[in-house]
Parts: sequence; structure tokens; C-alpha cells
Amino acid sequence: MAATHELMGEGGAVSMEAIAKRAGVSKETLYRWWPSKTSVVLDALAERGQSTIPLPDTGTLRGDLAAFLRSTADSADPATRHLLRAIAAAAANDLDAAAEIRTRFISARRAALNRVLARAATRGEVIASNADTLLDLIYGSLWYRLIFDVGPLDHTWADDIAAAIAPAP
Amino acid sequence: MAATHELMGEGGAVSMEAIAKRAGVSKETLYRWWPSKTSVVLDALAERGQSTIPLPDTGTLRGDLAAFLRSTADSADPATRHLLRAIAAAAANDLDAAAEIRTRFISARRAALNRVLARAATRGEVIASNADTLLDLIYGSLWYRLIFDVGPLDHTWADDIAAAIAPAP
Repeated sequence: MAATHELMGEGGAVSMEAIAKRAGVSKETLYRWWPSKTSVVLDALAERGQSTIPLPDTGTLRGDLAAFLRSTADSADPATRHLLRAIAAAAANDLDAAAEIRTRFISARRAALNRVLARAATRGEVIASNADTLLDLIYGSLWYRLIFDVGPLDHTWADDIAAAIAPAP
Repeated sequence: MAATHELMGEGGAVSMEAIAKRAGVSKETLYRWWPSKTSVVLDALAERGQSTIPLPDTGTLRGDLAAFLRSTADSADPATRHLLRAIAAAAANDLDAAAEIRTRFISARRAALNRVLARAATRGEVIASNADTLLDLIYGSLWYRLIFDVGPLDHTWADDIAAAIAPAP
């Protein structure tokens, strides 16, 4: 994972060969744990999200969403955005790839944001059964901007989405 | 356009050669009007959206959104979904392709839904300056489901999104 993070951060080609070399293990060892380059990169991205995007607890859904989405935008440096776009292209081209991406990466990000929504539900700010729809809307807007370049992923985006999902009471 | 629609509906390969043949014109004539196959397909998809997705006027944002998104889901038959996924992959792979897709297709769909939101703004149901964020959220959720297959694009999706964006007063 650490070797993959390093290579991802350097923005160059991430291959099984390069990861094995950087980690000081054989390619055979790497393949014993991950079936493909895509699977290593997805796990590394999920781990990176987990460690760089803290779960905020500001006391309101609006505040939590703004903080969470600001961290999300901040953690998406140019190399990461490039990888995320490649992942979207792979998913759009192939339903099997989409399934692996959901299992290894999308589900981890949904689970993290879902904890923010669950806390909001206990405060009565959202209805718990709406959480899946809200996750679709929020992560949908992120990928839509990333893929079609309809607007920047920045703090203004984070605050606008937070305000639209959690209007002031 | 009609020839392109026919070929798209048949689900087979859509090439400039095939479009020209079906339309009974030379490839040179076709290239005089469209620079690439992608540009013809995008224009045909935009025209198809315009003609198969009516602008509803139910009197409420919730009703209008549910009707508009139900029509959107209905108009996306399997051949169209396949084309839309190919378009998403092209956009994710190449920022120039993303720009052409925004200009020829995405902007037309945003303009249509924006008219629904503008009517809701005159009724005081949304703030006009939030429209762009709402367009991102709504179309984001559509593409997110289409690309990553996180859930079906059907009437339940349409109704859930309408309810989340326009809660009952």
C-alpha cells in the first residue's frame, strides 16, 4: 500500500512491476494478495480516503457535510484526480470493472459519508431511509464534475452541496 | 439525424460510413456538417432527449421533477445507455472530449431541466442561484448510477430524487 501511495503521488505510471520493485517484493508476492493492478490502486485509494478525509462532528449536517466535502476536494490532488478519471472510464466501459470498483472503493467512501448522515438522522436532520439517495446525489455531483469537467471540485463546491442538501433550518 | 437515430436504436455499430449509407448521402457531405462520429451521435442524443422528454408542468417542483426524471429513465433504452456509458468513458479519458460532450449534449439536458427549476423559483420553491448546484446533484446521480451501476435508473429512482430535492412542504 505504501509503495502504491508513493507511486500514485509521483504521478507516473503505476504498474505491478513498479509497485513490487518499490515495495521490495517479487511480483509473485504482490499477485498473491491482489489479482490486478486495478485492485491494488483501488485499495490504495480507499485507504488514502480513509486516512486523509476525517469524519467531522460539528453538530450540524450542514457543517459536517461542508467539512467532509472540503477534505474530499483537498485530498483529490492532480495525480489522484487522474486516477479517479481512469477508474470512471474503466467502470463506464465494463460492468465487471464497475463491480470491482464499487466493492473496493465506492462502498468505502459511501460508508464514511453514511456515518455523517446517520448522525444527522439521530438529530432528526434527515430521514434515515433517504441516506442512499443522498449518497447518490452527493457522490454523483462529485463524479459528474470530475468526469465532464462541468465545474471545479473545490471548497465552493463543498459549501454549495452542503447548503443544497442541508438547507438552513 | 434520422439515420443516426435508427442506427442507434438498432444497437449495432454507429460509424460515419453506416450513417452516410443509411441517410443516402456521401461521407464527404456528412463530414461537411459534423467533424466526427462522436459529434453526430451527441447531436442525435440531444435531439432525442429534446423530443422524448417533455417539460412537465404539474404545478409543483416535486411533481415536475418526478415526471421529468421518469421520462428521462424511460427514454434511456439499452442501446442509449450503452452510448451514454461510452460517452462517459470518452469524457473521463480526455478533457477535449469532455468539452465537446458538454457543448453538444450535457448543456442541452441542463437547459431543459433548468426550465423546470426556473418555474419552481418563480413559485418560491427553490432559490434561483441554487439551480446550477441542483442540476449537478440531479444529473450527477443519473451518471453515477449509469457509470458505476450503483442502482437502477427507473421510476423509483426518479421519485426518490424528486422527494430528496423537493421535500414535501
